[in-house]
Amino acid sequence: MRTVVAKSGALRVAELPALEPEAGQVLVRVRSCGICGSDLHSLRHAESVVAMSDAIGSERNFDPDADYMMGHEYCGEVLALGPATESAVGPGDLTVAMPFLIRGATVEAIGFSNRIVGGYAEEMILDAGLCLKVPNGLDAGLASLTEPLAVGLHAVNRSGIERGDAALVLGCGPIGLSLVVWLKARGIGPIVVSDYSPRRRGLAAELGADVVVDPREERPVDAWKRIDGVRPLVVFEAVGVPGMIDEAMRSAPSKARILVVGVCMERDAITPMIGVIKELDMKFAVYYEADEFADTLHAIAEGLIDVAPLVTGRVGLDGVAGAFTALGDPEGQVKVLVDPALTGTEIQPVR
Amino acid sequence: MRTVVAKSGALRVAELPALEPEAGQVLVRVRSCGICGSDLHSLRHAESVVAMSDAIGSERNFDPDADYMMGHEYCGEVLALGPATESAVGPGDLTVAMPFLIRGATVEAIGFSNRIVGGYAEEMILDAGLCLKVPNGLDAGLASLTEPLAVGLHAVNRSGIERGDAALVLGCGPIGLSLVVWLKARGIGPIVVSDYSPRRRGLAAELGADVVVDPREERPVDAWKRIDGVRPLVVFEAVGVPGMIDEAMRSAPSKARILVVGVCMERDAITPMIGVIKELDMKFAVYYEADEFADTLHAIAEGLIDVAPLVTGRVGLDGVAGAFTALGDPEGQVKVLVDPALTGTEIQPVR
Repeated sequence: MRTVVAKSGALRVAELPALEPEAGQVLVRVRSCGICGSDLHSLRHAESVVAMSDAIGSERNFDPDADYMMGHEYCGEVLALGPATESAVGPGDLTVAMPFLIRGATVEAIGFSNRIVGGYAEEMILDAGLCLKVPNGLDAGLASLTEPLAVGLHAVNRSGIERGDAALVLGCGPIGLSLVVWLKARGIGPIVVSDYSPRRRGLAAELGADVVVDPREERPVDAWKRIDGVRPLVVFEAVGVPGMIDEAMRSAPSKARILVVGVCMERDAITPMIGVIKELDMKFAVYYEADEFADTLHAIAEGLIDVAPLVTGRVGLDGVAGAFTALGDPEGQVKVLVDPALTGTEIQPVR
Repeated sequence: MRTVVAKSGALRVAELPALEPEAGQVLVRVRSCGICGSDLHSLRHAESVVAMSDAIGSERNFDPDADYMMGHEYCGEVLALGPATESAVGPGDLTVAMPFLIRGATVEAIGFSNRIVGGYAEEMILDAGLCLKVPNGLDAGLASLTEPLAVGLHAVNRSGIERGDAALVLGCGPIGLSLVVWLKARGIGPIVVSDYSPRRRGLAAELGADVVVDPREERPVDAWKRIDGVRPLVVFEAVGVPGMIDEAMRSAPSKARILVVGVCMERDAITPMIGVIKELDMKFAVYYEADEFADTLHAIAEGLIDVAPLVTGRVGLDGVAGAFTALGDPEGQVKVLVDPALTGTEIQPVR
């Protein structure tokens, strides 16, 4: 069984023994697994993942200097259930599942683990209780977008944004674009979006953004003031580099809400007085609830949201390392799906 | 008419021409005005007040290099109403009012102004529409605590804290202590409070804190874990120095709420990833709504909250400069009330 293995900032493909599902587990053949920006980030800054983990008192026990396996945006085809195991899925079904393995009282994350195989592999083990059956004949590639889209749904839900409010989305990576998809589906408008990349701004417009801004040409909040400026505003920070939270706080009008979903792993400077004087509400978001994950799968399967434009390439296991590099260029790929059935190292363009 | 005047970090007493109330205004004799921590801070860092004002696009037009007048926690005795002016108060009434003068479409702040006399003066002008009559024969000194207590009430209201939640209050300055007063009145428990000053911790305990912590001896969040650790926690940051928001974020359990009411005027570093991983809710608070200001006055007048322990000294106009210095020592004064009828420069101890 082949899997991508990470160590000290490099990726390679390794052969592992075949996996055996235990009681309460499901063995799947991976059909598609999206490459997430946090994978790229953790490969370059694995030590900061550990430092953060320590800082919050997590017992993840993740050692970035040993071999580890990534991939948490997967869709698999069920091969076998563990002994005496009940599940919503059976052999042959396509399934998606939240990236956790529950073992007694402990929950282990899938996707940043020295022990558990992630989605960049031919096969993997899922928790039988978490497996959702992919409905409506939905294609495995689109089904594997459930996870990043659920992040966007959760962030939109947590923001408390309602019809009648306006949205300013800073950043058009996959999470920023996922926000646009959900905001549009909720009937929010105007949706003002900013990114340095023309390609990503184009995608945002295709997905429903009302105005797209190059921050070199216009301050995003000024674009909102130009076309609206009166609705209650929610600012979504989906860039995740130092300085962006400060920019969101400076951009926000008094009493505005800020939803931080960009993952900035470094220390960052803010100006608290600006938050105080404006009485800002700032919420941070990550992951999703189980119902949001299921709602996302069904929204994709029922065509309530169109996520196909997000997918820009597909690649086999041997091409994952190259895809990580390619994803560093915002003018190139946006969401690359790993399909272990593909051979070679080239990224197959999707659009 | 004598008033304290600030310029370039120094205070002096100056003589001004008598004030005349215009239509819609009330002339009062100042009976008491509390010295606020933000006054001390602005005297040392007036340039940062201006920088912040610019950053948020305010048109306050405050020039800290020219003479300016402070004092926004006042209670006055009405001397005269302007021509054709209606008000809830008449000559001889004690009154408190939110620190604003409304002139047509512009609202000018009282308390940081080059033009408008503040509460560190024998007389001042208030907006007739904002004047509340002090009820129940309440003493002017306690009535002048309405403003800082309203800040605490607003922060507690904005935090969304409810009976059944726990509170961790970082900092026992007047605002931290005001939070304790309101949290106790709301039936919140446990209330865990931290401060380096034994005197201020003692006051917090007297006002209703269940546990007081010296952060040199125990991390405040550990004290909460020791005696509770299970209730939904709201962390109140009422210190306002760099590093405290980061400490609040690191202390907060997952999904906790943080209410920032400490006024940190400097740049400050946070670790956004901690907020993201814990999905924190962080709200900033300043000032209050008109109904909260009125509710505070009535809560004091009706004895629903006991704020007398906050007052540690009284001083005349000639002693304001010395009181600013004395307030720099947390073991000394907590809340000093300026009473323009007092003579000399000594602070009269209250307790």
